[in-house]
Amino acid sequence: MVGTNVVWHHATVTRVRRELLNGHKSVILWFTGLSGAGKSTLAHGVEEHLHQRGCRTYVLDGDNVRHGLCADLGFSATDRQENIRRIGETAKLFLEAGVLVLTAFISPFRDDRARVRKLVPHGEFLEIYCRCPLDVCETRDVKGLYKRARAGEIKDFTGISSPYEEPVAPELVVDTGMLPLEDSVASVIAMLVERGVIRAAPPAAS
Amino acid sequence: MVGTNVVWHHATVTRVRRELLNGHKSVILWFTGLSGAGKSTLAHGVEEHLHQRGCRTYVLDGDNVRHGLCADLGFSATDRQENIRRIGETAKLFLEAGVLVLTAFISPFRDDRARVRKLVPHGEFLEIYCRCPLDVCETRDVKGLYKRARAGEIKDFTGISSPYEEPVAPELVVDTGMLPLEDSVASVIAMLVERGVIRAAPPAAS
Repeated sequence: MVGTNVVWHHATVTRVRRELLNGHKSVILWFTGLSGAGKSTLAHGVEEHLHQRGCRTYVLDGDNVRHGLCADLGFSATDRQENIRRIGETAKLFLEAGVLVLTAFISPFRDDRARVRKLVPHGEFLEIYCRCPLDVCETRDVKGLYKRARAGEIKDFTGISSPYEEPVAPELVVDTGMLPLEDSVASVIAMLVERGVIRAAPPAAS
Repeated sequence: MVGTNVVWHHATVTRVRRELLNGHKSVILWFTGLSGAGKSTLAHGVEEHLHQRGCRTYVLDGDNVRHGLCADLGFSATDRQENIRRIGETAKLFLEAGVLVLTAFISPFRDDRARVRKLVPHGEFLEIYCRCPLDVCETRDVKGLYKRARAGEIKDFTGISSPYEEPVAPELVVDTGMLPLEDSVASVIAMLVERGVIRAAPPAAS
């Protein structure tokens, strides 16, 4: 709850001025999908491409959030919800800062993702479903998590003992189980161009 | 085969690359001081100056944090501590994103500020004490908070019914109770130049 002794202030450096300086718009690219679907890989691939174009970007993922901002949270239903809420609010701050922010979290529940979508103006939350069959994710099992989940060592593991709710109307679906990374990256970039977030061709200089 | 590439999900866009693109280093400018000391005013004044130089900046303050990321927190001792912790962790994310991040919170307790300082490498947390006598802040009383605190309508109000612990060794002290805003801004900018965060003269183009 917010006390009444919080008064609104005005900043002179607006989001529009930041976007003008950057030469691109800011949006939230929300990557969602099963563990092992390639969300982080895709997010970082997209970021690399955008950075080379001179865009200001940042990836929020388990690496930099779970050990810091959300270090006090566990994996209970309540904590998972709060985790996504804080990530959404932080993404919103980056959005206001003019940054193209990419988030890579399983974020399995529709309600949680819908709440984040509602935080920002229409068209600024772009949900990207990294679609990859469970058996492919489980075969990859890079972190050995599926094996441990099957053995009952990890509770409420998405896809095994906890549901993953597929996006109903995501802005983009990427078949990360089939496509090579460069094609997946290209489809995200194409969407950003189509939506006018970035320019079609790299700027001559920045 | 795509599956073999899945391990690659570390970030290739490093802070150093972001700083090179931006043409300046990133630091946390942590403004601390009494309510009414002019923290937000100074932070936004500094941001305006930096933006005009082509720097990437963002101000975290009560406006964008208390209603969002920390909307679940009240003003108890525990909640205030958690508030500063989250702000510190968020500032750290902006730091990694290459952004010059400015924070404007009373942050009255030394321990809380010290914890944030420890989150980041040496020299990247710059504590700026906005020094302004209590009676000046209370005379200004822009938000009418002191009056309400004196009337007992606000509990644990810093300076009235809750202590403000002055910084022991801040990187900068600005006498916001005496100096005109432009002079205060100039002293912060001078510090940033001296520390090599920004260049002495505005870049020719950005």
